[in-house]
Amino acid sequence: MLPSEARARFRAGLSTPTSGWCAGWTQANLISVPRAHAWDVLLFAQRNPQPCPVLEVLEPGEVSGELVAGDIRTDLPGYRVHRDGELVDRPTDVTAYWRDDLVSFLIGCSFTFENALLAAGVPVRHLALGRNVPMYRTTRRCRDAGRLSGPLVVSMRPVPAALVDTAVATTARYPAVHGAPVHVGDPAALGIADLDAPDHGDAVPVAEGEVPVFWACGVTPQAAVLESRLPFAITHEPGQMLVTDARDTEYLV
Amino acid sequence: MLPSEARARFRAGLSTPTSGWCAGWTQANLISVPRAHAWDVLLFAQRNPQPCPVLEVLEPGEVSGELVAGDIRTDLPGYRVHRDGELVDRPTDVTAYWRDDLVSFLIGCSFTFENALLAAGVPVRHLALGRNVPMYRTTRRCRDAGRLSGPLVVSMRPVPAALVDTAVATTARYPAVHGAPVHVGDPAALGIADLDAPDHGDAVPVAEGEVPVFWACGVTPQAAVLESRLPFAITHEPGQMLVTDARDTEYLV
Repeated sequence: MLPSEARARFRAGLSTPTSGWCAGWTQANLISVPRAHAWDVLLFAQRNPQPCPVLEVLEPGEVSGELVAGDIRTDLPGYRVHRDGELVDRPTDVTAYWRDDLVSFLIGCSFTFENALLAAGVPVRHLALGRNVPMYRTTRRCRDAGRLSGPLVVSMRPVPAALVDTAVATTARYPAVHGAPVHVGDPAALGIADLDAPDHGDAVPVAEGEVPVFWACGVTPQAAVLESRLPFAITHEPGQMLVTDARDTEYLV
Repeated sequence: MLPSEARARFRAGLSTPTSGWCAGWTQANLISVPRAHAWDVLLFAQRNPQPCPVLEVLEPGEVSGELVAGDIRTDLPGYRVHRDGELVDRPTDVTAYWRDDLVSFLIGCSFTFENALLAAGVPVRHLALGRNVPMYRTTRRCRDAGRLSGPLVVSMRPVPAALVDTAVATTARYPAVHGAPVHVGDPAALGIADLDAPDHGDAVPVAEGEVPVFWACGVTPQAAVLESRLPFAITHEPGQMLVTDARDTEYLV
């Protein structure tokens, strides 16, 4: 399926995690903030490049750009609307919330390297189970920028122990979409008490002989927006990404 | 020599290209602009990551940071001061020009991967000759950002034809410091009329059997500052870089 076809379905109202959709095409996290806060977001991203790799910045009010035709206000499966540090709505269309001063950031997503993992022989559990990837807020802190501060958010994929090195080497070649894992093995080292209770997405089983592997996640700026009580922000629903018109291979080093 | 020792010599007044100094330590381009123009510079960098990979952003007025102890106003061998699109001074100390609203960007430099080139058996001509690297303004345009627009600036190293693939593969692994070449072979393709007349730095001979190889250069934002007639900016003197306290290997993928 082409990205434009997937976006048409989401525009028509389909709400679903996008992991596994449009194999080979890059997916992106979305965060839109008023112009007055855009500098802090861009600086936060620059200082935390592993969770917040910026693929594109749309000028105030713009709803499409080099990476994506269509309309970012309607073409994602789900959104979150945040006010003063509270989640106030989870619509499937944010046209009614749109403002001409919103600057939108498209941020790399680890779904981009899942094809490469499969091609390297590394199974991807949530894909096999047809679920959303599990995501966790950690106790690891991001570097602050202006009024923005927050925790590192990670995604987790169970990997057979013998394939961990392959998973690390494969994803390290995609630095623009989170790159190599931030941690391998011990959830407690990241302050994650229970792998079966992710903060976003769906839990997946970690089988005997498998190791939980954690990658930086593009939900991190959402967590910063909440913790920092930014007056207003629109983001994607975690796991329900913007499917762009860029190829995954464009982010391969 | 340690970076702090090199910076002490420059602070004492030594003016020299820094290519080959402090092997293994990362060097950086400097651009400082008033807060009012910082968004445009950061967005320009985000949209032109190959010439403008941002290693660090210092808050308004800050003169040191995570990547560099010391004082960026005094610790480079040479500076340029720009007003309204004109180069107005080339001092060895910019303390007298400093303003509390200046936001400083440290941008990756291709000197970072020269050690890796040597280790891979690729000779680096300007190092062997004790010269500055030759740099050229090209006819290739950067992506605009706000009021900033300008040409791509490149550095050139002659590489024996049989080693071009090695040079490409070696530098591709350093995407944060310009990465792989932007062009191999034909200066005219970049609008460079005469390799012996670089816009910055020193000419170096291209021998029989060698190919000129062009990498994106961190002087690019200087060219944009000039063309866009930004009211005020301080930059390094091309080739006379900030020697940071970060290791080259930190930028290896």
